[in-house]
Amino acid sequence: MNRKLSFLIITFLTAFNVNAFESEWRELDPNNAILLTLPHGKVVIELAPQFSPNHVKRFKTLAQKGHYDGNKFYRVIDGFVAQGGPDDGSVKDKAISEMKIEADFPIDKDWSFTLVQENDLFTEQTGFKEGFALGRSNTENKAWMLHCPGVIAMARANEPDSATSHFYITNGQATRYLDRIMTVFGRVVYGMNHVQAITRTSVIEGDTPVDLKDYTPMVKVQLMSDLPKEQQIRLEINNTEHPSYAKKLSDRRKRENAFFYKKPPPVLDICQTPVGVRMIK
Amino acid sequence: MNRKLSFLIITFLTAFNVNAFESEWRELDPNNAILLTLPHGKVVIELAPQFSPNHVKRFKTLAQKGHYDGNKFYRVIDGFVAQGGPDDGSVKDKAISEMKIEADFPIDKDWSFTLVQENDLFTEQTGFKEGFALGRSNTENKAWMLHCPGVIAMARANEPDSATSHFYITNGQATRYLDRIMTVFGRVVYGMNHVQAITRTSVIEGDTPVDLKDYTPMVKVQLMSDLPKEQQIRLEINNTEHPSYAKKLSDRRKRENAFFYKKPPPVLDICQTPVGVRMIK
Repeated sequence: MNRKLSFLIITFLTAFNVNAFESEWRELDPNNAILLTLPHGKVVIELAPQFSPNHVKRFKTLAQKGHYDGNKFYRVIDGFVAQGGPDDGSVKDKAISEMKIEADFPIDKDWSFTLVQENDLFTEQTGFKEGFALGRSNTENKAWMLHCPGVIAMARANEPDSATSHFYITNGQATRYLDRIMTVFGRVVYGMNHVQAITRTSVIEGDTPVDLKDYTPMVKVQLMSDLPKEQQIRLEINNTEHPSYAKKLSDRRKRENAFFYKKPPPVLDICQTPVGVRMIK
Repeated sequence: MNRKLSFLIITFLTAFNVNAFESEWRELDPNNAILLTLPHGKVVIELAPQFSPNHVKRFKTLAQKGHYDGNKFYRVIDGFVAQGGPDDGSVKDKAISEMKIEADFPIDKDWSFTLVQENDLFTEQTGFKEGFALGRSNTENKAWMLHCPGVIAMARANEPDSATSHFYITNGQATRYLDRIMTVFGRVVYGMNHVQAITRTSVIEGDTPVDLKDYTPMVKVQLMSDLPKEQQIRLEINNTEHPSYAKKLSDRRKRENAFFYKKPPPVLDICQTPVGVRMIK
């Protein structure tokens, strides 16, 4: 095919791509969603196989095997992370092999996202793609998932390729210094309040330590599509590729509401920029 | 006094200022601290009369009058704020007059703080002063308290000078777009986990609304020094003016720990930069 025709066809497909443009909302795929049941509530995590394929594959497999059921959140630091996994050195723990890090991925010039901010403090560009907050470097031709609050990432030892099954969910101000050195593979889209209520295991010097028996367990970690239909939580999420979302960003930057009697700087912190979620009954 | 001598004396006083330099830790002044008792735990707030004198004065007076005891957190949005105050239109609510905003304050060239970051996304400089995160503009000769997670600020209507007694505590990614248009007057220094466990009153579209009876009440809001000594929570806080704190910042920027197999950009988000707290038994 000659180059010009090929370009035209690509342009046509992009402009009328059904997934990208059909609606302001897209339905969460239950085959790509995790239901984390805590003693005090339910949490839904959307996985990102398009950015971290091997980590998502492993997490889904482990969830389906019941690997996480009954695990504890054993390292929970307010304003930082809730980390959990099997007991250190247990059979479950040792059974899982180490895996290669997927902290960023190559992009080409045609790769696009919904731009949020140029010259963000930590990188050249930030933007959303399919609801996920990403960083981008056009000098390095790389993109990566950002450590915004509520992302799920695999924990590791000092070596980059040392993650197994232990994971954390970020619960405070974005730990952006972890971008590109940890594998983020999804984000909480429902029940972040329940993540915030997980018992902190770290207390300040001088305060009463938390008893091991009070650590919050994961009652169940399941793939949503494995549940009977009537037990599934069905969600719709803002389609960040729809023109209405770019409009939302632009409005948020301008702050025309009368509440803003003085305008803030016209910049956006992507981790403070909401992607709407609603429930389908 | 001639100018040169005056300058020397000021330099001497600054270099050997007892409050600023004597120790890596300073004790929280109980006459400048609020104990917020929630049904599920205790929260300590350090007030900032040096930056927002009138708001601190009002909050202390209202706490001492029992104004907030039994009030509800009626607007609690995950990742944003927990806002509370008396019932709208109640006698308590209507008794409180509106007050002038204190969202930023003038500084002169001698004004100093512990610099954290130049060219932060939202402003020229960020830094700490007496444990509080501040923004600074040298072109405008102004400084202001930042909307980091865990700050307390007075709510208002659209008019800048319309705050009364309703307040919010930020519970998510820093809402920096509110800097300089809201009066921050303190920050949570203990029990942020309990703030995070306040019942959210806003749910997503389609989810079950929260019943008014389940809203989290403020059991008591008291000035710490009004409590019997044995009931006070005594804390020590990192002295952000001590050279050891500047060293902490510099270490944090460098990330020499082996965990950082690749170094992140040498920048610091002040709202993700901890100021240590420990308990005195």
